[in-house]
Amino acid sequence: MGAPKVDFPAWLAGRVRHIEAVLDQVLPEAGALPETLHQAMRYAVMGGGKRVRAALVYAAGQACRATDTATTIQDMALDHAAAAVELVHAYSLVHDDLPCMDDDALRRGRPTLHVRYDEATAMLAGDALQPLAFGLLAQMPIAPALIVQAVQILAHSAGSLGMAGGQAIDCASVGSVLTREELGTMHSMKTGAMLGASVLLGGIVAGASSTAREALESYAAAVGLAFQVADDILDVTSDTATLGKTAGKDALGNKPTYVSLMGLDGSRQFLEALHADARAAILPLGTAAARLDEIADYIVGRNH
Amino acid sequence: MGAPKVDFPAWLAGRVRHIEAVLDQVLPEAGALPETLHQAMRYAVMGGGKRVRAALVYAAGQACRATDTATTIQDMALDHAAAAVELVHAYSLVHDDLPCMDDDALRRGRPTLHVRYDEATAMLAGDALQPLAFGLLAQMPIAPALIVQAVQILAHSAGSLGMAGGQAIDCASVGSVLTREELGTMHSMKTGAMLGASVLLGGIVAGASSTAREALESYAAAVGLAFQVADDILDVTSDTATLGKTAGKDALGNKPTYVSLMGLDGSRQFLEALHADARAAILPLGTAAARLDEIADYIVGRNH
Repeated sequence: MGAPKVDFPAWLAGRVRHIEAVLDQVLPEAGALPETLHQAMRYAVMGGGKRVRAALVYAAGQACRATDTATTIQDMALDHAAAAVELVHAYSLVHDDLPCMDDDALRRGRPTLHVRYDEATAMLAGDALQPLAFGLLAQMPIAPALIVQAVQILAHSAGSLGMAGGQAIDCASVGSVLTREELGTMHSMKTGAMLGASVLLGGIVAGASSTAREALESYAAAVGLAFQVADDILDVTSDTATLGKTAGKDALGNKPTYVSLMGLDGSRQFLEALHADARAAILPLGTAAARLDEIADYIVGRNH
Repeated sequence: MGAPKVDFPAWLAGRVRHIEAVLDQVLPEAGALPETLHQAMRYAVMGGGKRVRAALVYAAGQACRATDTATTIQDMALDHAAAAVELVHAYSLVHDDLPCMDDDALRRGRPTLHVRYDEATAMLAGDALQPLAFGLLAQMPIAPALIVQAVQILAHSAGSLGMAGGQAIDCASVGSVLTREELGTMHSMKTGAMLGASVLLGGIVAGASSTAREALESYAAAVGLAFQVADDILDVTSDTATLGKTAGKDALGNKPTYVSLMGLDGSRQFLEALHADARAAILPLGTAAARLDEIADYIVGRNH
């Protein structure tokens, strides 16, 4: 495998279109009973978004698989893994937006789910998206032993020692001062865990060696943190229309961020260091990891 | 395997003590970060309960395994499966009790989780219990192909076509008149799906044949519905102190129940018919299914 033949924006746009089609297919029909719940699940999942997690699954899969195993069956498995991480991400946003959490009315330029429907439907839609994700992993057409590893990774990353735990620390930290280490722990759980799971799932499906998995883990740790630092910078430098969600909300809510801790310049320098870490981590994977490299550039350089 | 040597109440009490110890072990330590979330998860899970789902896992395992495969390893796998269904059940109660759902302040004679902690913690604790359950299945020391089947069953039973879907129908049906068929659909999803999953998981871990699985599925369908009919009868014939939750709440909330649809006598007759169905379903499994038979008796005869 050599350098990518399609430029990154075109590749990413293609992957976004593809995962949207996959998600449309794996979600229960809007007309299936219970209809309102299924419509709400679709509203939560199909409302756009950057699909960074799905892109990471595909890019890691591309980085790790040998050309001769790049079969249609493996592509199907990557689709399931990419859909699973997007479903978990979508559920987390729905619950995060609820009045008892961030109480946000706007997401991706649309009313949040509980505003469009109601709180009970929003909670249940989130609740139902989680098992749908695990079910998709269980249906991947790969060796059962690899599926079991994938389920373990998703379970750990979504749980109390991963995303849900990070969310809990985030809630508890409003109005308090965190050290850089505490802030790092919170974000590595809240955001980093699922970004890391995306990268690892792509590698597992592609039959990554243990060396390749280690490279992916280092990459994921750096990229996961970079994603959050970039988010904190955007929260103070961008506006609501560009973000598609309420800008300045973290600062307003007195939430600890990298910008509040390190200042804007300090945060930008930290972001560059993480970018360098991410690029260095995947050097052992060679040119096959070009998409992972480009995703790191994208995460550092994005403006929304 | 012959008839049980320990009488049912003693066996059930032993299984309850055992699963409590297993749950205590599989839940993250109360002192592990984030502490409040982990304490809340323990509050949700360790607060007693009948442990009917765990008992079904163990009884189905006993019904299906050959004596010579009754190894310690298989016992460990049954423990994980039993803990998984109890975790999912516990999460569903926590979310069900929230103000946007049933808004209940009392559960098993104690304040509900959001009353004891807060709504955000209750939502996140429920959210984190789900992946913990899937992670436990993935760690079962049995063939990966069987684990994959177990994950599929739990994913389906907990999702929008199972428990979460039944919950959504239940919410939407407040104040409306359901036919007996619609009520049956709602309950077979809301309660029956996870009871059925418990029975099937026990069978899968024990290496049940396809004939045995069919018997378990028929048994589970009858027992799952019987459980709900018994619950509806108890809601109007018992008091709050005995139930450990608010009695008469369904009738007050204008929720459709079997009693509101068929009357008290009609519901009791229906319960007896389901009991007979459950007993007939497991005849092919012989005396090894004695505990399943006794659980059916217990579900029909329980007073809380």
